[in-house]
Amino acid sequence: MPKSLRRKSKKAGLPPGTLIHVGAPKTARVKVTIIDYDESNLQEKEVVKIDECYPFKEKSTVTWINVDGIHDVDVIDKIGKNYGIHPLLLEDIVNTEQRPKLDDFEDYLFLVLKMLSYDEKQHEIKIEQVSLVIGPNYVISFQEREGDVFDPVRDRIRRAKGKIRKMGADYLAYALLDAVVDGYFLILEKIGDRIESVEEDLISNPDAKTLQIIHYLKREMIFLRRSVWPLREVISGVSRKESTLIRESTGIFLRDVYDHTIQVIDTIETYRDMVSGMLDTHLSSISNRMNEVMKVLTIFAAIFIPLTFVAGIYGMNFSYMPELGWRWGYFVVLAIMATICISMLIYFKRKKWL
Amino acid sequence: MPKSLRRKSKKAGLPPGTLIHVGAPKTARVKVTIIDYDESNLQEKEVVKIDECYPFKEKSTVTWINVDGIHDVDVIDKIGKNYGIHPLLLEDIVNTEQRPKLDDFEDYLFLVLKMLSYDEKQHEIKIEQVSLVIGPNYVISFQEREGDVFDPVRDRIRRAKGKIRKMGADYLAYALLDAVVDGYFLILEKIGDRIESVEEDLISNPDAKTLQIIHYLKREMIFLRRSVWPLREVISGVSRKESTLIRESTGIFLRDVYDHTIQVIDTIETYRDMVSGMLDTHLSSISNRMNEVMKVLTIFAAIFIPLTFVAGIYGMNFSYMPELGWRWGYFVVLAIMATICISMLIYFKRKKWL
Amino acid sequence: MPKSLRRKSKKAGLPPGTLIHVGAPKTARVKVTIIDYDESNLQEKEVVKIDECYPFKEKSTVTWINVDGIHDVDVIDKIGKNYGIHPLLLEDIVNTEQRPKLDDFEDYLFLVLKMLSYDEKQHEIKIEQVSLVIGPNYVISFQEREGDVFDPVRDRIRRAKGKIRKMGADYLAYALLDAVVDGYFLILEKIGDRIESVEEDLISNPDAKTLQIIHYLKREMIFLRRSVWPLREVISGVSRKESTLIRESTGIFLRDVYDHTIQVIDTIETYRDMVSGMLDTHLSSISNRMNEVMKVLTIFAAIFIPLTFVAGIYGMNFSYMPELGWRWGYFVVLAIMATICISMLIYFKRKKWL
Amino acid sequence: MPKSLRRKSKKAGLPPGTLIHVGAPKTARVKVTIIDYDESNLQEKEVVKIDECYPFKEKSTVTWINVDGIHDVDVIDKIGKNYGIHPLLLEDIVNTEQRPKLDDFEDYLFLVLKMLSYDEKQHEIKIEQVSLVIGPNYVISFQEREGDVFDPVRDRIRRAKGKIRKMGADYLAYALLDAVVDGYFLILEKIGDRIESVEEDLISNPDAKTLQIIHYLKREMIFLRRSVWPLREVISGVSRKESTLIRESTGIFLRDVYDHTIQVIDTIETYRDMVSGMLDTHLSSISNRMNEVMKVLTIFAAIFIPLTFVAGIYGMNFSYMPELGWRWGYFVVLAIMATICISMLIYFKRKKWL
Amino acid sequence: MPKSLRRKSKKAGLPPGTLIHVGAPKTARVKVTIIDYDESNLQEKEVVKIDECYPFKEKSTVTWINVDGIHDVDVIDKIGKNYGIHPLLLEDIVNTEQRPKLDDFEDYLFLVLKMLSYDEKQHEIKIEQVSLVIGPNYVISFQEREGDVFDPVRDRIRRAKGKIRKMGADYLAYALLDAVVDGYFLILEKIGDRIESVEEDLISNPDAKTLQIIHYLKREMIFLRRSVWPLREVISGVSRKESTLIRESTGIFLRDVYDHTIQVIDTIETYRDMVSGMLDTHLSSISNRMNEVMKVLTIFAAIFIPLTFVAGIYGMNFSYMPELGWRWGYFVVLAIMATICISMLIYFKRKKWL
Repeated sequence: MPKSLRRKSKKAGLPPGTLIHVGAPKTARVKVTIIDYDESNLQEKEVVKIDECYPFKEKSTVTWINVDGIHDVDVIDKIGKNYGIHPLLLEDIVNTEQRPKLDDFEDYLFLVLKMLSYDEKQHEIKIEQVSLVIGPNYVISFQEREGDVFDPVRDRIRRAKGKIRKMGADYLAYALLDAVVDGYFLILEKIGDRIESVEEDLISNPDAKTLQIIHYLKREMIFLRRSVWPLREVISGVSRKESTLIRESTGIFLRDVYDHTIQVIDTIETYRDMVSGMLDTHLSSISNRMNEVMKVLTIFAAIFIPLTFVAGIYGMNFSYMPELGWRWGYFVVLAIMATICISMLIYFKRKKWL
Repeated sequence: MPKSLRRKSKKAGLPPGTLIHVGAPKTARVKVTIIDYDESNLQEKEVVKIDECYPFKEKSTVTWINVDGIHDVDVIDKIGKNYGIHPLLLEDIVNTEQRPKLDDFEDYLFLVLKMLSYDEKQHEIKIEQVSLVIGPNYVISFQEREGDVFDPVRDRIRRAKGKIRKMGADYLAYALLDAVVDGYFLILEKIGDRIESVEEDLISNPDAKTLQIIHYLKREMIFLRRSVWPLREVISGVSRKESTLIRESTGIFLRDVYDHTIQVIDTIETYRDMVSGMLDTHLSSISNRMNEVMKVLTIFAAIFIPLTFVAGIYGMNFSYMPELGWRWGYFVVLAIMATICISMLIYFKRKKWL
Repeated sequence: MPKSLRRKSKKAGLPPGTLIHVGAPKTARVKVTIIDYDESNLQEKEVVKIDECYPFKEKSTVTWINVDGIHDVDVIDKIGKNYGIHPLLLEDIVNTEQRPKLDDFEDYLFLVLKMLSYDEKQHEIKIEQVSLVIGPNYVISFQEREGDVFDPVRDRIRRAKGKIRKMGADYLAYALLDAVVDGYFLILEKIGDRIESVEEDLISNPDAKTLQIIHYLKREMIFLRRSVWPLREVISGVSRKESTLIRESTGIFLRDVYDHTIQVIDTIETYRDMVSGMLDTHLSSISNRMNEVMKVLTIFAAIFIPLTFVAGIYGMNFSYMPELGWRWGYFVVLAIMATICISMLIYFKRKKWL
Repeated sequence: MPKSLRRKSKKAGLPPGTLIHVGAPKTARVKVTIIDYDESNLQEKEVVKIDECYPFKEKSTVTWINVDGIHDVDVIDKIGKNYGIHPLLLEDIVNTEQRPKLDDFEDYLFLVLKMLSYDEKQHEIKIEQVSLVIGPNYVISFQEREGDVFDPVRDRIRRAKGKIRKMGADYLAYALLDAVVDGYFLILEKIGDRIESVEEDLISNPDAKTLQIIHYLKREMIFLRRSVWPLREVISGVSRKESTLIRESTGIFLRDVYDHTIQVIDTIETYRDMVSGMLDTHLSSISNRMNEVMKVLTIFAAIFIPLTFVAGIYGMNFSYMPELGWRWGYFVVLAIMATICISMLIYFKRKKWL
Repeated sequence: MPKSLRRKSKKAGLPPGTLIHVGAPKTARVKVTIIDYDESNLQEKEVVKIDECYPFKEKSTVTWINVDGIHDVDVIDKIGKNYGIHPLLLEDIVNTEQRPKLDDFEDYLFLVLKMLSYDEKQHEIKIEQVSLVIGPNYVISFQEREGDVFDPVRDRIRRAKGKIRKMGADYLAYALLDAVVDGYFLILEKIGDRIESVEEDLISNPDAKTLQIIHYLKREMIFLRRSVWPLREVISGVSRKESTLIRESTGIFLRDVYDHTIQVIDTIETYRDMVSGMLDTHLSSISNRMNEVMKVLTIFAAIFIPLTFVAGIYGMNFSYMPELGWRWGYFVVLAIMATICISMLIYFKRKKWL
């Protein structure tokens, strides 16, 4: 994931407000869709020419413009100009290295969020940047690519489920925020599963593979934390703003999303603590096993080396070695060896090595 | 315990206020009991039809409605509607993954708590979510299952012990809070016992089992902390609220519960520090033991390997080896071996390995 | 010390204000002594019947009632009722598991402190709870058992040393606080001595005993910190209170005690850091020694195993082994062995293992 | 890098305001360049005599005086006197050991920054101190040596790119700040690359070289953090100042730089966490490998030492050893040896050592 | 250094304000010197009888009374009484265990500082306590022994360098503070040198000596931090005080000392981080080396133990061992041994152990 930091530098030195896409290069067409609704009407369309978006600014209905793909800075620029978005914010939209943040302008609120998804194939968390511009009667959302967690929201609008169709743009913004935060729980679930699967091997069978998974989990927690932590302030910021853009009735819902965010952060911290603990335990566990290995070695060595020595003595070729001629010499030596062996076993038994 | 996080995700995308039970699935019947009292009267009954609860809202006596089982969202919904509880709160009640929290509405306070119990069979801490709705003359408590720490409170109401019968709903709420917090001390006691039992093995006999117990204790402290820490703010919140629901006379009792909560948190932190210290000590202790094992091995090897080599020399079959023919050759070699052996012992004695 | 947490649970479920002694059971008689003084008069007596204490409440002289032993809840209850102490505070007095704390009532201040003493026999820190009730012209102190750090204060009152006889009850309270805090320095001295004695063995001769002492020191620092840390807020609380009970002239003395408390906390933190560092150093130190042991083993093995192998070759009984028949075969082999031995020594010398 | 702290001490004892250059000694000539511009005019020149700078103070155009080289205290002194800069600040300018800081005087703001560059040859981060004096219509920048990150800003002024030519000295100051902060991203990229390259060896092939790189990365993070962390306060200070020197229109740009600074700090913290985690993983990883080594040793020893012992027995020269005379004795012994060998292999297989 | 805590306890129980010298016992005579000056006059003398100090209190010139040696409580007491210093402060002056602190009285400010010096012989940091009493036109400084960092200040007064002779007592106090803080840089330099010298051995050649130096450095950082950290608040306290004793013109100089103090603290923290990192690296480094040692051992054992076994087989004395009679038996066995040896070497080469 640190790769993501590499491309920021190509911006160094440009005048502020210059739109340069900073992120993985993409070739797909930018897709812009509009959902416009009030309690009784609903219009949904994909935009072909970008100026189709313009008239919705003045309509009293709630308009949700969703932009999939931010690599075409031209599209962003046009929408930005029409909706009066500050050039520095447009720069933030196309730069996918932003921290989650909230900027409050008089006419609109600007939010940067991180949308997480789990790539089942590569067992990796994917981070996508979502920017929201919340105006009095419109919400514009910018995403890096198609595919998102907003389908249930679209569905609720289409089917007029819940009270979304009766509420304003601020409630729509809340619904989107809520969808993003709900997505985090899915990720945490995956991580929770992996933590649990490692836990089992941790003490009974610690090895390099366990270590690698712990190491990756640790790194993932670092990145996850970095994406989610600032969200706390963003959402608490939105709900406390005395902006006229956020109606009071939406406040309680925002407080609910805030509670969920705290819960996510709390779980991340818990997982972080657990993963840290696992690394410590892994080290102790490996030392433990090495101890076992060493004991096996020592027991073998301590028993057989003296015996081999005794055998070695009577393998010497001195012409005068009285024991060699004794009738029972061989058996006496065997008995001595058995005695040594048994004493050693008793000694190690007492030391609790056996 | 991380399992508990898994089911949250099935809610992702639903409109807010949709009641979905998030928790271990249960089939038992929901049991609703009512205790209604004032200084002179006491009525206690189990509810058969849920609308038996409704009339108590208007009565001037103090009413305690206790709901055991929250998987039947229908029951929750009906009570909620009758008592005017906000749909988002009902959602919180049936979602057992909440953090302890306090929400202040004009007509009632809403608290989420974690009630802990120790499962003697599985040596595990069980966490149960308890939600309290505190109205002007009623308290509604929602629990996940039957069996709780509230029996002493019921008993005090029945026998009119202490001043509970003379006080209002806020005092009842305090009594319930106090019972929950007192329950924590029982858990801490169990953990204290286990910490102590591990301490003894820690330095004298550290092994994988010790490590496992420390690892589990550490995990339990993480979860315990997570359950109790937010309680601090919840209780301090209740006692500072300028809500008309909390009479001034109850304030001092709430401050007392607050003191207990601080004491619980303090003890958890102390235990956490101790358990962390134990993991470090365990590692050092194992290294220590490995050192001992290594010394034994080295002493055996360093003494017998040279001796075996000497024996090996005189086991060679060269036709011309003058020593072999000497009359006392064998005994001279034995003497040399004894000298080597004694010198090594003196050497290791000096090195303090013996 | 965690034992102390065990008995708290027997209170679970009782109505608040129920006096139950929580602490080590005791059978000794409760001893109540009174010192009553002003600038010119001094009266000192041991109380036989508890109601002898009552009249002092109204006297304008400064009265110090000291209660040794809190297991007789009856005595506590009677004094409490006479001096108008809130039942919850009486409960705190007899429960020795309190954290240091300050409660401000209109007529009196209530303080809980921990008095530390060092048990020379068992090399253990003993913690005793002291509760102070500070009224306008009286101070009541409750201790767990006879024997305390207050004798110098008694002495100063008796001999009219310093200005204690000229000042009010607040100054007396200050003197008691000061005596408790001064006692901490004695404990820190003992711990400092033990830290120093371990330091010496730490690098030159680390073993299981060193580890054990470090482990105990660490635990003691945890408990010490827990006893002293909240004291900071307690004393700063007393000196900032705009209570009429604390005269302005006493303020500067309280600030002095506060400075001492900070100094104690500071030293505890310093010791904690040192002890933590010692554990890390101990682990490194043991690894260091293991390295030494391993080197000895490896040097012996690497020198003698090849030599033994060479001896083994010429111990084989093949009928056709030309070297065996050579005149100088034996001596050539001995020379080869010496060469191997010397090369290995040079090799290890170069590796700096010797 | 700690070397940089050495030269501070030569100042000890001098009266405040004495200009002494503290930093690596330099012999290059001090180079002073002036860029003076407004929307329509642009004048750029290198100063030969220092008093050429003086008249720009009064001109209404924006003037940027850049001083490369601060070892010639005379030059600094003259400029300082002319522009009315406080002697203590001049002292700070020539002392390269400053922390980033902001001083607010009525007539000008004074900033100390650290400009980072990556020395490709020595794989080292170079830290250069940049001081900015921001007046109503001028900015004076002091650098330690020629070569900086300001060229893009110069370019923008020359080509009138963006709105820099239309704005005042405060915007110029912002542009310089932005250039410095943008430079940090380049450094972070380099470090990110190195972290990634180490990650690969960490578990598969940990050795002393890996350790060394981790150790250096850790040190670099410590120094980087130290340079950047105080910048946060500096920039937030500039943007919050109610100084008349900073126009409101520049505020949003400063907030943007502030966001970037936070992002840099955030990344540094992330890297720090990663590098710390890597050290822990490295230790576990090495222990893991040692375990492998030990297993190999133990398997060899445990198989061959008993076998050698058996061979030793029948190498003894007792005159009466019945087995020696048996016809199949030799083959029976070989069979026994094979059995021992196979049993050991099965044993280690079961222990999962193979 | 913990020794310094031992003597505090001898004060336990004494009434407040009792002057008892707490510190290393000293026998040298107390030396009191006076420097009295204004812009045009300068008087400097050593005091023979202590009452020579008294008249300076009323003089309008700036007077600096320096007391070397605080073990003669009589001298302290007399000066204290004459200059109206509170008895508790006198107690602080003679007790060398104070934390750096600032007390603000109406007529004077009281400061406790720690002056550090490096004992070249014992390679140890010496800590000396300096107390300053700052009155409207006098500064009294108390030191533990002769020899200090104030000579440059004396020199500046004598030679009228800088503006010290034109300023008041507050500027003199600043100059003394500045001298103390500048002294810290010297200490940090020494520590920086030692850190660097250890760094070199850390990875290439870690041993018990390296560990010992790291351990001492760590302890020194703990003590250093403890001495300097509270200074931050002290100096920021002095500069923020709205005391009439500190003129506004001195404010900017105090802010400068404050900046230096922050810089010192910053460097201490950096060093602490570095030293902590070094301990971790040391452990990893030792484990690394042990790995190397183990590999050498294992390679030797794994090659020669099987070979010795083979030799052992053909050393057996069975009467029927067909191979022994073969013409080329011996050479075949030698060839087999060579093969085993080479296979092992290839095996270890592949494992990257060679």
